[in-house]
Amino acid sequence: MLVLGVDPGTATTGYGIIEVKGYQYKMVDYGCIKTSPRCAVPQRLQKLYQQVVRLLNAYRPAVVAVEELFFNKNVRTALAVGQARGVVLLAAASQDIQVVEYTPLQVKQGVVGYGRASKRQVQEMVKILLKLDKVPRPDDAADALAIAICCAHELPLAGCQQRMER
Amino acid sequence: MLVLGVDPGTATTGYGIIEVKGYQYKMVDYGCIKTSPRCAVPQRLQKLYQQVVRLLNAYRPAVVAVEELFFNKNVRTALAVGQARGVVLLAAASQDIQVVEYTPLQVKQGVVGYGRASKRQVQEMVKILLKLDKVPRPDDAADALAIAICCAHELPLAGCQQRMER
Repeated sequence: MLVLGVDPGTATTGYGIIEVKGYQYKMVDYGCIKTSPRCAVPQRLQKLYQQVVRLLNAYRPAVVAVEELFFNKNVRTALAVGQARGVVLLAAASQDIQVVEYTPLQVKQGVVGYGRASKRQVQEMVKILLKLDKVPRPDDAADALAIAICCAHELPLAGCQQRMER
Repeated sequence: MLVLGVDPGTATTGYGIIEVKGYQYKMVDYGCIKTSPRCAVPQRLQKLYQQVVRLLNAYRPAVVAVEELFFNKNVRTALAVGQARGVVLLAAASQDIQVVEYTPLQVKQGVVGYGRASKRQVQEMVKILLKLDKVPRPDDAADALAIAICCAHELPLAGCQQRMER
């Protein structure tokens, strides 16, 4: 089964798709959806929506994993992230694909086994777990892969495997 | 020309549609789009999106007016409002309808002529300007009508009339 991890933002949304076979993970694709600051926000959100739908149709993941709110951000950032996030959740709903959410703490615990791990530690573990030659770049894509791995760890508990197999 | 004002939220999104002829305004429709807390957020956003698209198709407004961020809200609220707002902006973009944004200060100034007007004062002015028998209910719908009126006031300045006439 495939898991799509997404790290949403209006300017840059990271994505990472991994294949999960039991506790073995394989990187399938990763990258960023970028939108131009020269465009109006509705058009940027439209581009984001279209690109996420394109990814969902291309890979048909069983689950979309998205990071939950990070409380250290300010209100303006939260609104901007929320707008991008709303569009990503809508894209998943439009394709009838389940969405799961993880806090940054859960992602760190899931990937490194330690909730206060540094960004660098998370990225190194992403590299190791996916057997990559180097840490994925840019950071948004690495973060998205980490979210996907966190989700993959939890799949047997969350009953997603069964869902996928139905 | 028609203006659609929207006050977005995941649980309740207020909307108000007014017809603008010069400086004369007429209420066309108003109400709320509600989504059930028993549904998952992606499905709630999907319902919101579908309902906004339905409104846009039914009325074909020249402009969609949305309130900007209110800074007194906390980060969690901003994220939730952001998600709903992203979906509303996307709906407008999908129908190729222009979006304009106003701060709460601009709405109060635009409707009452005083940036620190109370909610009640704004609602009374909405009633008067739209020649209604009573203040529109619920508050989200009244807020949405206020945003539409604020937008209508600014249309000649914003060049929207010309756009509409093209």
